[in-house]
Order: sequence, then structure tokens, then C-alpha cells
Amino acid sequence: MGRTPKVLTVAFQGELGAFSEVAARQLCGPDAGMAPCQRFVDVFERVSSGKASAAVIPVENTLHGSIHENYDNLLQNQLVIVAETQVRIVHNLIAAPGVSFKKVRRVFSHPVALNQCLDFFAAHPEVEKAPFYDTAGSVKMLMEQRPPDAAAIASSAAAVQYGARILKRGIEDDHQNFTRFVLLLREREARKRLASVKADGWKTSLVFTTKNQPGAIFRALGAFALRDLSLTKIESRPLRGKPWEYLFYLDFLGDARDASAKNAIAHLAELADFHRVLGCYPRGV
Amino acid sequence: MGRTPKVLTVAFQGELGAFSEVAARQLCGPDAGMAPCQRFVDVFERVSSGKASAAVIPVENTLHGSIHENYDNLLQNQLVIVAETQVRIVHNLIAAPGVSFKKVRRVFSHPVALNQCLDFFAAHPEVEKAPFYDTAGSVKMLMEQRPPDAAAIASSAAAVQYGARILKRGIEDDHQNFTRFVLLLREREARKRLASVKADGWKTSLVFTTKNQPGAIFRALGAFALRDLSLTKIESRPLRGKPWEYLFYLDFLGDARDASAKNAIAHLAELADFHRVLGCYPRGV
Repeated sequence: MGRTPKVLTVAFQGELGAFSEVAARQLCGPDAGMAPCQRFVDVFERVSSGKASAAVIPVENTLHGSIHENYDNLLQNQLVIVAETQVRIVHNLIAAPGVSFKKVRRVFSHPVALNQCLDFFAAHPEVEKAPFYDTAGSVKMLMEQRPPDAAAIASSAAAVQYGARILKRGIEDDHQNFTRFVLLLREREARKRLASVKADGWKTSLVFTTKNQPGAIFRALGAFALRDLSLTKIESRPLRGKPWEYLFYLDFLGDARDASAKNAIAHLAELADFHRVLGCYPRGV
Repeated sequence: MGRTPKVLTVAFQGELGAFSEVAARQLCGPDAGMAPCQRFVDVFERVSSGKASAAVIPVENTLHGSIHENYDNLLQNQLVIVAETQVRIVHNLIAAPGVSFKKVRRVFSHPVALNQCLDFFAAHPEVEKAPFYDTAGSVKMLMEQRPPDAAAIASSAAAVQYGARILKRGIEDDHQNFTRFVLLLREREARKRLASVKADGWKTSLVFTTKNQPGAIFRALGAFALRDLSLTKIESRPLRGKPWEYLFYLDFLGDARDASAKNAIAHLAELADFHRVLGCYPRGV
């Protein structure tokens, strides 16, 4: 019997060709199987139930901030972060073969993507914005319905996925638009992976709550500052239904298995009402 | 000559009937003039140039997090926060008069709103989601085009604005969906208002940057913790184009004119590369 290569099936939100799929390929390689899901909760359910082996979810964007919905999903599920990556959001004007730019009068995409290409629309007033569900989904729709005067805005991966053509590349107004994605595994698989992976630098993500007392967050951050651990993210979020209590997201540079990081987390546990390590993983570039 | 009542003209992003208009009415009263704008940058420009007297912008949402775009706009303009309010995002199913719920087969709205009403769509599989630019804009469109089988999802203010009817109230999945809005004035008007307003409790918002040294944020928060000032928000954000430098948003409970708050801000100024007070205003309920 030959050796069976270990192929992951990766659940993500959106259609094939979505930016989440781009992130999934960066994190899991070209051979991974892709399991597109309608909603983020479906992504978590797919992996928790064992129907997919991994999940890739966005956690923050440079323009739009943290995606609280996915931090909620992380708290409500037992999946573990094992890797991170960034995707630059490049929007391309894409059409079915045979549709030239001169013919384009309508451009379909998700409203957020349309609104990130306002310079393009200002330069081409003859072209109308047409809101659609999904960036990649708008390319899929064009290839099925073949309107002769329409294009879509989506990733180049979406053009490849559906056999469409890129008419213009990089039409987004702001080239500093990045989304950070994380790879999630079930606890058992995460433990195995952590034991075998080598890395130059590590990052640890955790969530905790404190009572709203003056200085509570200052003392909590002391657990890290007093051990010279650098934070790469700190964010407060009011707790639903509990006025004056806060949930904090915190990322620090360090391996949760090292003594100083272990001690910092134990110190935080003394000060926080609740805390959970979401994962410890090689620091992305 | 009679006394001229001082009426504000308030710029906001979206169509009349948008949640931003609901916030503007909460903040400025029923008589304020409303100046709807297409983009957030237009809102800032309208007030900076003197064409409108005030702006109302969203800064954070309980599900989607901070709206970085508007923090960028606050930094790039000289407008000052003078008040805050919260709006609960209640989604209603709205149709033109004569369209009963039984006839509805398509529901138009912004995709974010459609995705916040998935329980409704799951319970009514005969109804299709139809993405549209804007929540209030979808009601306006229904009233102009009168499709016999369509409804929209928007605020009750949008139904009132365009003379449409509410078929079902509160169809959002999550009733804990709040957006925090702030009222902005030009510096001169903000100073006048601050001098005349009385309040039981105050809040101060500021932005600062620190170098990424271990403990930098810990020391910066010490300026507030050592003076027993409570934080209600702290958030880090990577600075564009400057890896390893961070911008921080911070809100604390206190009046920036009081000695301890003044000292805390002066202390922060010693530690931060850059800082700016975005405003000092009565704490919202």
C-alpha cells in the first residue's frame, strides 16, 4: 500500500474564489479540499462535528476592525488557532469571455467591495454599481447568466475558479487593505500539530474578562509587561447584557509553553474573572 | 424681530430613514435639518467646509466592532466629539401600502441587514433575499417602483420617511445589536457648547501612538490607572505602512478639564509619540 498523503478539508465562509479561500490556500497549500459554507456558524459546526478537518476564518481587517462575530464563535466552540496569515484585498474587474471593457455598463459585487472602488466608478460614470451577495458569487453568476454588458469585482482567484477574464487589476482605492485570517483545528489535532511544528517566532492569542474597576486592565497587562512580553493586539469589548464588564482580546509575542509566557498566563488568571487561550501558533509574516 | 431658534443641519451617511438619522434625531432633536451624504468622507467635508453645522457618525457596533474608517476621518479632520448615543438596530419588514405579507416573495436590503435576519428567512423559505445598497434606500425604491411581491428590511424611521407600512417588527436574530454614534462640531462651536453644557458624568476620547516596546501600552495606561480613572474602551490598531507601531483608541470616564484628567493626559503625552483628544462630552446612557 502506498503512503496516503494527509489532505485537509478546509471549511470557510463564502463561495469558491472568496478571499477566505485565498487565505485557506496560503495556510493549507494547493491540495487542500475546500468546503464553502454559507455562514460563519456553519464553518465552526462543520469542523466541530468532524465533517471538515480545519476552518479558516477572518478575525480582523485593517479598515473595518475586529470581526466580533468570529471571536464569539471562538468562545462558543472548542476549536484552537494553529496558524495565521494576512491577505491583501485586491479587487479586480472581471467579466465573462467575450465581454470587453467598452461594453460594461453594470458591475456586480458585494456593496463593501463596490464602496472600496469608488475612484474607479468616479472615473467611469457610464458604469453602474450593482449590489450582489458576494464578491466571488457575482463572478459565478456572470458566468452562468452571461449578461453582455456586465462585469464583477472580486479576487483573481474567483476569475480562475469560474473561467472568467480579468479586465482590470487592482481597482481598489486603498491598497493598504489587509484581512488577517486564522486556521482552526479541533483540540486533539491542534495539540499534535503544535508538538511537531517548528517556528522562529510564536504568537499566543487569548480572551479574558475583568470587572470594571479603575486599573483592572492596567494590572492585567502588567502580567505581560513585567515579563517583557510584547503585545500585538489589545482590544476591549463591552460584554453583552453585563453593563460595565468587558471582554478583552489580547495577542502577545511568545510561546505559551515557555516559562515566562506560562507565568504571565497564570498571573493573568489571578486577576481575570475568566480567561481562555485561543491558541499558540507560529507568527505570520 | 422674534428670537430665531438655533436649528442645526446635521450631515450623516445614508439615505433619509437610515439608522444614522435615528441617531441624529436622538442627539439633535426633532427640529434639526438632515443632510444625507453618500460617503463618510462627504459627511466630514460637509461640516468642515461649513455647509452643515454638525455631523453624526457611527464609531462602533456590538457585533462588528470599531469603524476604523471613521477614526481615520476623525484624525484627518479637525471636528470635535461633543455627544454620544446608542441606537438599537431593530430590523423591520416593510412594504408599500397594498402589499400584504402573503404576497411577499423578495426582500430587499443591505446584505449585512439581510444576514442579521436569517431566522426570519429560515422560517419563510418562499421568500428570497435581494441585496440592495442601503436599508432605508430599499424602502425608498419600493415606494417608487411598487413591485407587487417585494418588501424591504429597514428601520421604522424609514417606513415613516417614505410612507411605507411595517409588516413585521423586530425580525433581527440578535436583539443585542447596538451601534454607538457620536455628534461632531467644528472646534469653535465645540468649545462654546462644552462651556455651556451641564452633565452628571463625562467621557473623554483620545487617540495616541506608541513605539512597540514591551510595556509601552502598560506604561501609557498607567497614566490613567494611577489616577483612578476608569477606561471604557481601549483598542490597538496596527499603523498603516509602519509595521510594529500601533495606534490606540482610548475612552475614559472623566472631564478633560478636571485636574486629574488633565494630569493623566499630560502624563500620556510624555509617553506617547503622538496623542490627540478627540472630545470631552456628557456620558451617554
